[in-house]
Amino acid sequence: MSHEREATPGRRRLGGWGFEGRAFPPSGELLAWLARHLGAPTYPVPPFDAERTLAALEGHREPSGRSLPDLGVSLSTDPLDRLAHARGQGLSDLIRLRTASVPALPNAVARPADDRELEHLLGAASREQVRVIPWGGGTSVTGGVNVPAGEAPVVTVDLERLAGLEALDPVSGLATFGAGTAGPAIEAALAARREGSGRGFTLGHFPQSWELSTLGGWAATRASGQESLAYGDVQELVAGLELVAPSGRLELPALPASAAGPDLRQLVLGSEGRLGVITRATVRVRRRPEALRVVGTLMPTWADGLDASRALLQGGVPLELLRLSDEPETEVALAVGLAGHAWARPLLRAWLRLRGVRGSGCMMLTGAAGALPEIDETLERAAAVLRRHGGVSLGAAPGRTWLRDRFRHPYLRDALLDQGLATDTLETAAPWSRLPALAASVRQALEGALESPLEGETERVAVLCHVSHPYRDGSSLYFTLFFRCAADPEATVERWARTKRAATEAIVAGGGTLSHHHGIGAWHAPWYALEAGAKGVELVAGAAAALDPAGILNPGVLLDPTDRLER
Amino acid sequence: MSHEREATPGRRRLGGWGFEGRAFPPSGELLAWLARHLGAPTYPVPPFDAERTLAALEGHREPSGRSLPDLGVSLSTDPLDRLAHARGQGLSDLIRLRTASVPALPNAVARPADDRELEHLLGAASREQVRVIPWGGGTSVTGGVNVPAGEAPVVTVDLERLAGLEALDPVSGLATFGAGTAGPAIEAALAARREGSGRGFTLGHFPQSWELSTLGGWAATRASGQESLAYGDVQELVAGLELVAPSGRLELPALPASAAGPDLRQLVLGSEGRLGVITRATVRVRRRPEALRVVGTLMPTWADGLDASRALLQGGVPLELLRLSDEPETEVALAVGLAGHAWARPLLRAWLRLRGVRGSGCMMLTGAAGALPEIDETLERAAAVLRRHGGVSLGAAPGRTWLRDRFRHPYLRDALLDQGLATDTLETAAPWSRLPALAASVRQALEGALESPLEGETERVAVLCHVSHPYRDGSSLYFTLFFRCAADPEATVERWARTKRAATEAIVAGGGTLSHHHGIGAWHAPWYALEAGAKGVELVAGAAAALDPAGILNPGVLLDPTDRLER
Repeated sequence: MSHEREATPGRRRLGGWGFEGRAFPPSGELLAWLARHLGAPTYPVPPFDAERTLAALEGHREPSGRSLPDLGVSLSTDPLDRLAHARGQGLSDLIRLRTASVPALPNAVARPADDRELEHLLGAASREQVRVIPWGGGTSVTGGVNVPAGEAPVVTVDLERLAGLEALDPVSGLATFGAGTAGPAIEAALAARREGSGRGFTLGHFPQSWELSTLGGWAATRASGQESLAYGDVQELVAGLELVAPSGRLELPALPASAAGPDLRQLVLGSEGRLGVITRATVRVRRRPEALRVVGTLMPTWADGLDASRALLQGGVPLELLRLSDEPETEVALAVGLAGHAWARPLLRAWLRLRGVRGSGCMMLTGAAGALPEIDETLERAAAVLRRHGGVSLGAAPGRTWLRDRFRHPYLRDALLDQGLATDTLETAAPWSRLPALAASVRQALEGALESPLEGETERVAVLCHVSHPYRDGSSLYFTLFFRCAADPEATVERWARTKRAATEAIVAGGGTLSHHHGIGAWHAPWYALEAGAKGVELVAGAAAALDPAGILNPGVLLDPTDRLER
Repeated sequence: MSHEREATPGRRRLGGWGFEGRAFPPSGELLAWLARHLGAPTYPVPPFDAERTLAALEGHREPSGRSLPDLGVSLSTDPLDRLAHARGQGLSDLIRLRTASVPALPNAVARPADDRELEHLLGAASREQVRVIPWGGGTSVTGGVNVPAGEAPVVTVDLERLAGLEALDPVSGLATFGAGTAGPAIEAALAARREGSGRGFTLGHFPQSWELSTLGGWAATRASGQESLAYGDVQELVAGLELVAPSGRLELPALPASAAGPDLRQLVLGSEGRLGVITRATVRVRRRPEALRVVGTLMPTWADGLDASRALLQGGVPLELLRLSDEPETEVALAVGLAGHAWARPLLRAWLRLRGVRGSGCMMLTGAAGALPEIDETLERAAAVLRRHGGVSLGAAPGRTWLRDRFRHPYLRDALLDQGLATDTLETAAPWSRLPALAASVRQALEGALESPLEGETERVAVLCHVSHPYRDGSSLYFTLFFRCAADPEATVERWARTKRAATEAIVAGGGTLSHHHGIGAWHAPWYALEAGAKGVELVAGAAAALDPAGILNPGVLLDPTDRLER
């Protein structure tokens, strides 16, 4: 079944997404669609080449003139290791890595073996004014782990040795993992524990970055998985956690609920490394479901799809996942999905017209998990709601395609850069009542972001949007954007920064949150005070000052409003 | 149906629970059971008498020698008003009010008309070093609103004028209320809004204090309602809120979810007035269900009941509520429930023995809400699970009794004091794996709390326990205790303090939380650092210092570890 996944497949790729030997090239249909919307791409971005990149980064770009003092712990200063920990996985990170324009590498990479070594490191770094960047899977798309050029040396702390299942309470459904444990290792360890029912456990947290990202990173950024509708976001999954900070430890016990003062877990979740390093977390796990089934339905319009999504959520239909694509995303999905079946498209179109769907329609995926009779019952309850909103069933094929590709999409970005096409994603969330206007205004802002009326040259931006994390009171909106690369990589980064600024302004103006699940990082930080308020920022900064008095942790992230989009 | 409730019925009673003219006297069966377990009570506590009490509180007990400076806002200094705001509704509060042994009254009561007046008050109080106690329904059972005798004058801020429905977003299911709105007013305002489906809305938050307590109080103490299994605790219900603090405002927007930094709502929820005064909150509301049905099942043993509860929760049966009483509580419930049907008891006992229930068994209530076919389906799913654990159906009668009395139990306390019997409740929560041992050790601690082997005199303590807020990973445990009053009311307060200390030590030792839904208040504060850790307390204190630099808000609560149980 779909929860079964292969073990970690070999070496991480440097300078791009994923594992060596894996790829997800764009289909001819996607390239044709993009060429139609953007014009033909003309400036491929050169591929990443580690040796060439290191040679280009003469002196290996120390972040400051000051060299790293002795911190009394074991450190790696291997240039390739430092390069592998210089940047996250945002679009500009990929471009800077490919073009050797990374402003700085960390002076060293630490891999503490236990909490004590980490405490020692943080103490020494505080005394010596060395900055520390916690690193889980390095998959931040908000500049959350990037090494800034500045006055202080930087050590990146890779948590890969604080990993693995430490304890399982099968009665309560609570599992304690080291923070550096990545998604596949978590699921493998839980699946192997079959006490009681004979069926293993699952955390049920499957973000798109699942193959690379870690529990500590999810907690630090308030991540959401693709099945969050059933399992909850990380803020629901984490029952307890431990944080090691320069000034001491925070050990928050795993409790089902508590009224013993404010919930300090929720202060640590989303703290993005500014309060300390999360070293372990106790998460709520469940018995693995027998199966997961995902089916597709075409909704006549985006408005119909939103209404139907809301009806499903507010009606309490126990779905595992719900995804609703807007018209452009549906167009692309159908083009790609029906590739090789050229005959099928006009047939499908005619059939849909017969059922009252005039435009391309909006693809809705609904998934249910559990035992087979429950799955069928839930999907039938959902289908009845969708039919009332004009939905036309597309059967199981769209679901199978989505399940097959659910963790492959990030590979596409690297492949598109090879073709001279840039793609990025961004996301927000808002109450249902604000969602239609918010989706429209973010789309409009993105589509117009590269218009330069004065210079007479206009680059187009293609935008796809979907709902993927719905709640009773609102939903996330997830945008994928495409534009052509410029001749000069710096200009491509600038184009990207313009789309990012335009979308963020539209999100703030439209009453959306700055992020539903990517976090604030460095790139949203200039707008953070608009959402949290000046007092809110002061409270988080106060907590950071209490736990990290020397201010060494994750410089530039969350609390520093400097615009770092083009750095 | 059961969600329909009468409008607020007249005047609040002074010096006791509830409204004038209402009572819930103990049945003869309950008194007989108590006499069997504790011996006959001999020292009734004199009833509350406002005039006598005020006369006894000579000089009306100003909290400090310093008189109240002019704060530039309208204040009530009426002695009866001050007396009505001197204490919460804990057992020792009732005894102190009845015996005129309250250590202090507030100097005055403020009722700000809007946020601006409140801001003005907090500013003036900060400058003049006047302490401020926020007051919602005044139903704290943890000393959370009590006026301490001390160096500074005290103003209690009653939020009754910051009340009412301010906005409703029927599409998203979000309603904004003033913090001073009490339970019945919230439900009445929501029930009246029938846009869309024609059926009104409900918040679904029904704590036992529902008739008196307010949204602001619920938020400040992380309250839970009796149907929290369906609707969530207050921490899930509050989507956004506003806090007015001496140093500024915190306005946290209502969002379905967010990864934009730490969740500051969760720092305010449970802050018990130390960070500021919550003035309004936006809560998640739902369409009112067509009906709520509650049925009873007798489980053979406590262990069977716990296993079955866990199976229901982890199996995802969508119940509205689940309550499981232990053997003593079941014995009392059956005795009281079958009063007037003396013939029924031996019959029931014989029938149960036939079905394999040997002791008194454990009463389980399961409730479901929604449309009628769904209710039946859910209750049947639950019944199937209960049967597998040996459950014997008791039908709808126990549910009807419980629904009728669900908000009446607090009246019992006053009536028992008239008879010379003291009763109190306390609660905790823990993962399922720790629950059986925790329940046993708290029971043992309570039962032995009034043993004085050296003095040779031993008062017995009768203890009832139930599960009422279950989760996938654990549950709350709610204890009701009874003991006889002493001749000297001070000695009765001391007896109570001994039970409280014994239970709290057992909770901490057994890995439970200090409170599932009553909060820390003044009375659990000596143990707070054991749960939050020294760093955790420092973080909350740091937030309080940022928002309330003069430290005027709610002295003695949450962050002050002084033992105030006997004050």
